[in-house]
Amino acid sequence: MLTLYHHPISSASRYIRLILGEYKIAATLVEEHAESRRREFLNLNPAATLPVLLIKGNVPICGARVIGEYIDEIYGTTKHSQLLFPQNPFERAEIRRLQEWFLVKFENDVVRHLARERIYKYETSAAYGSSSPDGGILRKARKNIRPHMQYLEWLVTTRDWTGGFSLSYADFAAAAAISTLDYMGEIDWSHYSAARDWYARLKSRPSFRPLLQDRVRAMPPIPHYADLDF
Amino acid sequence: MLTLYHHPISSASRYIRLILGEYKIAATLVEEHAESRRREFLNLNPAATLPVLLIKGNVPICGARVIGEYIDEIYGTTKHSQLLFPQNPFERAEIRRLQEWFLVKFENDVVRHLARERIYKYETSAAYGSSSPDGGILRKARKNIRPHMQYLEWLVTTRDWTGGFSLSYADFAAAAAISTLDYMGEIDWSHYSAARDWYARLKSRPSFRPLLQDRVRAMPPIPHYADLDF
Repeated sequence: MLTLYHHPISSASRYIRLILGEYKIAATLVEEHAESRRREFLNLNPAATLPVLLIKGNVPICGARVIGEYIDEIYGTTKHSQLLFPQNPFERAEIRRLQEWFLVKFENDVVRHLARERIYKYETSAAYGSSSPDGGILRKARKNIRPHMQYLEWLVTTRDWTGGFSLSYADFAAAAAISTLDYMGEIDWSHYSAARDWYARLKSRPSFRPLLQDRVRAMPPIPHYADLDF
Repeated sequence: MLTLYHHPISSASRYIRLILGEYKIAATLVEEHAESRRREFLNLNPAATLPVLLIKGNVPICGARVIGEYIDEIYGTTKHSQLLFPQNPFERAEIRRLQEWFLVKFENDVVRHLARERIYKYETSAAYGSSSPDGGILRKARKNIRPHMQYLEWLVTTRDWTGGFSLSYADFAAAAAISTLDYMGEIDWSHYSAARDWYARLKSRPSFRPLLQDRVRAMPPIPHYADLDF
């Protein structure tokens, strides 16, 4: 049995939970607050990032992109038509680019700031020296939401799925990030109808169900968070 | 013929130049100052990150990790004993972890701050509004060098190469970052004898030669930068 160290409001963790769900790979979830730098967790991943997947022999596989590639290499060849990471190197490069876009660039421009100020600070105020959100940081991060949503809208308007002709890792990277923001009510869906349709399709997949049931102490999700019709 | 958009003092660019050199894949180098956000460059890579590899049909492959995987998929299978990315999924996961360690964590903790304050600001002061380095940022980044060098020292003391038993992508990711810092004279080698031996082995490889000839206007390299015996 696999173990996944994760946090409910971590796009990278959600990305891997979705892929495990799609491939029907069972894993025990362990909630980790990476910013409290627990010694046992640092022993697994000295970079102190989430998620970490423990495989046989308690060997850690660290980080969303590394785990995504590992799952593809171990389980991908048996998936055929349900394969989420096509085999053509050029398509793979585009999917990896978008994976970085949503899990690194979007994360650094927007998501991690809002998650930290609104959720992590409340959960582990000791690690931050305060539990109050910083208004300046919130404003700056929120200003970056629009260009990112416009880019997503452009992707799903010009392509069948974000990464191209088929549902892929790129969609789950994007949906993981979007769902984190949506939990906090940070997305004004009225401006992005194509992105909303795309997200509704993703949200109605069985792999998404556990994410829609996530709740953190710091704040409840907005009312439409778990609605398939929003 | 391939084209690589790169910057001489960019660890991510150096990483790909080294891999292309090792695999004897010819590419035309084009120096790009990503922070000036040139429109034609943004059209190739909206994330505005380096490096970008243009393949046949002028299709861009964006970002060091994406290019590294692409090169492995296209050229790796013909390399046999010179393969820099082993085929075992667990070994690959460890190499990808270290690639992220050196090109993302080390970059964010140390390298990009020193490169920006000491070199990029001087080259494209218009993009930064100033060409003077920020003393506070320099001090903070320099404080992070020691734990990273200790980690590298530990890796090369306990293993044959950073990623395990054989020379791999992990060594080139680490050496790319180290060589960027070494150009600026930021590494006190007297404390790290195993890392020095490892770096001397890397530095003496033919793929390293072009990097040792790099010069940027902002500053010359320290005297021992190109010495194989330092």
